[in-house]
Amino acid sequence: MLILKHIPIRSFNENIAYINKDCSIYKVDNIKTLTRVEIHGGKKPVFAFLQVVENSKIIRPDELGLNSEAFEQIELSEGSKITLTLTPSAQSLQAVKRKIAGNILSSKDYCLIADDIANNRYSNMDIASFLVAMGSFVTPSEVLDLTQALRGDKNLDWGGEEIVCDYHCMDDIPANKVDLIITALVSAYGLPMPKLVLPSLNSTIGVLDAMKVLANVEVDARSLKKQVLERRGAVASLENIDICAADKIICGVERQNGLSTLERAVASMLANKLAAGITHLLVDIPVGIRSKIKTSQEAMRLRKLIEYVGDMLGLNVDVAITDGSEPIGSGIGAALEARDVMNVLKNKEEAPDDLREKSLFMAGRILEFDPKLRGGQGYLVAKELLKSGKAFDCFQMIVKTQGKKEPAQLGHLTRDIVADKSGSIVRINTALINRIAILAGAGQYAGAGIDIFRKSGESVTAGDILYRIYSCNQNDFAFVSSIIESGKTGFEIE
Amino acid sequence: MLILKHIPIRSFNENIAYINKDCSIYKVDNIKTLTRVEIHGGKKPVFAFLQVVENSKIIRPDELGLNSEAFEQIELSEGSKITLTLTPSAQSLQAVKRKIAGNILSSKDYCLIADDIANNRYSNMDIASFLVAMGSFVTPSEVLDLTQALRGDKNLDWGGEEIVCDYHCMDDIPANKVDLIITALVSAYGLPMPKLVLPSLNSTIGVLDAMKVLANVEVDARSLKKQVLERRGAVASLENIDICAADKIICGVERQNGLSTLERAVASMLANKLAAGITHLLVDIPVGIRSKIKTSQEAMRLRKLIEYVGDMLGLNVDVAITDGSEPIGSGIGAALEARDVMNVLKNKEEAPDDLREKSLFMAGRILEFDPKLRGGQGYLVAKELLKSGKAFDCFQMIVKTQGKKEPAQLGHLTRDIVADKSGSIVRINTALINRIAILAGAGQYAGAGIDIFRKSGESVTAGDILYRIYSCNQNDFAFVSSIIESGKTGFEIE
Repeated sequence: MLILKHIPIRSFNENIAYINKDCSIYKVDNIKTLTRVEIHGGKKPVFAFLQVVENSKIIRPDELGLNSEAFEQIELSEGSKITLTLTPSAQSLQAVKRKIAGNILSSKDYCLIADDIANNRYSNMDIASFLVAMGSFVTPSEVLDLTQALRGDKNLDWGGEEIVCDYHCMDDIPANKVDLIITALVSAYGLPMPKLVLPSLNSTIGVLDAMKVLANVEVDARSLKKQVLERRGAVASLENIDICAADKIICGVERQNGLSTLERAVASMLANKLAAGITHLLVDIPVGIRSKIKTSQEAMRLRKLIEYVGDMLGLNVDVAITDGSEPIGSGIGAALEARDVMNVLKNKEEAPDDLREKSLFMAGRILEFDPKLRGGQGYLVAKELLKSGKAFDCFQMIVKTQGKKEPAQLGHLTRDIVADKSGSIVRINTALINRIAILAGAGQYAGAGIDIFRKSGESVTAGDILYRIYSCNQNDFAFVSSIIESGKTGFEIE
Repeated sequence: MLILKHIPIRSFNENIAYINKDCSIYKVDNIKTLTRVEIHGGKKPVFAFLQVVENSKIIRPDELGLNSEAFEQIELSEGSKITLTLTPSAQSLQAVKRKIAGNILSSKDYCLIADDIANNRYSNMDIASFLVAMGSFVTPSEVLDLTQALRGDKNLDWGGEEIVCDYHCMDDIPANKVDLIITALVSAYGLPMPKLVLPSLNSTIGVLDAMKVLANVEVDARSLKKQVLERRGAVASLENIDICAADKIICGVERQNGLSTLERAVASMLANKLAAGITHLLVDIPVGIRSKIKTSQEAMRLRKLIEYVGDMLGLNVDVAITDGSEPIGSGIGAALEARDVMNVLKNKEEAPDDLREKSLFMAGRILEFDPKLRGGQGYLVAKELLKSGKAFDCFQMIVKTQGKKEPAQLGHLTRDIVADKSGSIVRINTALINRIAILAGAGQYAGAGIDIFRKSGESVTAGDILYRIYSCNQNDFAFVSSIIESGKTGFEIE
């Protein structure tokens, strides 16, 4: 018996058990590699990986420490008596090895893999292996099996609503915050749209980051249900919602190493939508040389795959292939993007046209899921909802219900990037522009980012402002300035 | 500036930096995933992955903690001032992604990968991704490039010896401790044989475990050189020897997840031999259905690959394909295996024939690397060295030089497994026998394991002892007994 202690360290996805090198019960000096253990004493055994503590300040020889992730799972208080057993690798890793060897896995294999992952029996390494193995080849029916496995058996329930809508974009286009506007439009129409999103990576600004500037996004399942049934819409974090546990863990690994494949992205996306009780889904596939999907052929293959899996699982899916070559909207960075969204919803003159048009187009397609709407009317209905201010009112109600926030301050350090010659803007390097925004601090600070004043195709005169950089801290500002000074602005003028 | 603190946790391969959630300088509440940082202040920057500490007992907001691995690398004392920068993923991970996509990597790619790994810029996840990607396909010339990259630029030097020998077996056959006997024979002949071995996994008993029962195996490079030049032999741990840093880290990952491929094993083995200054190498490829190499075709492919890479890098390689179907020797477990080795060297009657014969055969082939020896004489010379006691004397000198140990006690808990019927032993399930030994505690306790009394092909009468189990602790003993009682003994009698 060892005494349980909470070691308040977050290790990102992995359960870690800390054991003293002179542990009074288990002999650890032979441990030479990451060792899997099962910890008994709680309601169900918790899996963890051992790390050895070399003195007694953090863990005494009669104690076992658990990091925050594992401690939350064991549901015991500190001081509880626990025991330890060495466990072999997760059984389903055999299936991963078969996948590595090039085999097609069965539906049962995928279920076992998802179950082992959900129960923290995979190390991050194991998950990375699985992802790379999936990357070499995977059949459409395997994607279907994986989707079902990831979906799991926990579902959100919307009290018998016949149509529950969502919109999902398969790539991050900088500044593309149509999601918020679409949610406002669809909710204003009266169809429920519970938009649940995972927090974005450190290196991108996601839908949730923009929403966070305006409102609280941590909503529990019960409040979410009440809100969606009353207000018809929500933009909230998926992290607090207990569905698709295995998928959340896999996403954690993908975020870190960028190993995601389109097949995995499809399975993950559809599993989450299904478990979230979505019945009607519009999927946006942006195509562009700097997008994940570079050619229309790829986009078409992806569309077929989404349609196949969606159809097999009874989800009503509509797929739109769109232009992903340039940023949509003006601001990149949470506060600037939120500003763009609000400008569109308030029908302000400075609202970016492209952001408004894309939102109306997408919302229109979603509205047409409603059998009562005549084909082709969706866009016009959406436009009317925007013009009349109904979408704005609805969005305000959503924000109020989730918990309105004080407006975020833009970064106090600014720099204008101007055209170095007169001519026409022939291309905007989206990837570079995005990187400049990140270096300026977007993703870390809500108020950091860049505000783009000119679009591709426009004529400029030398000295015209192309975009403005906002930073919240001197380090970021100095760093991004040095990039700019090296001549990389992201705008090509000819 | 943050204040450096040593957090005495061993995390196995990965550098970890612990930061307080309210860090006074760096904003960490946006950290959602494993984040790479570079720590400045020491001679060279040290890479680590951030983990967030949720209270101030372990790390205060003005401190940065480093786990033992990272702390050893930064070469600063606690209390030193350090700074932190976020770093992007290692550059060479782009090459890993190209490998995942099915491309052939260049020699330069492999060098950059090895360099990034050696400098701890890869997470265990990244390394696992690399290994799985290598698993899908890799050309012989890539194996050559990887070997050179892993070899690195640090080499052991044996003061101008023309022939420096080694023996390497490509799989772990239970109880196969020919390495120790071969070292004794080759050294007794007068050829230098510095046998450097990585500590084995938890789940196998390696050469080093058996040697550890007899002598100290932690020898530094300087003492090793002196010993090999004087005594002509050594069996020591590779861990203390500063060569092939990237390979050691990759091995750590392979140990944990069993992702090693034969190509990686070849590159790793040859890189280590070359860096260890080996000039003449005998490689043993055991073939058997429970071995890593299952067919003679596979063995032949492997032989060609080893010969190709060895020839290209100027190593004199001889490859022997051997029978790997059953255990060689009687004991499985460090003390029992050491006993077998000593019994052979002492010419004792109870010495296992197969262990002696295989050792003589292999040593004979190594001796024939000596141009002065007439072809076909190797085996006879080896036999004479054994019979005369010269090999024993030489081994005793090696043991004495490294530091002789007190003999290990065999486990006090024993159980005899007897034949349940009379007949002939038609097969011994090597994998199961090995597992029983491990469950009995072999690998954890030197004195635990099993001692096999009968071999395949022999006739037995019901009640004859097939093997004896030794355990050092009641838990292990109870567990292995339950396996035996379920009817699984590993011996088939017909």
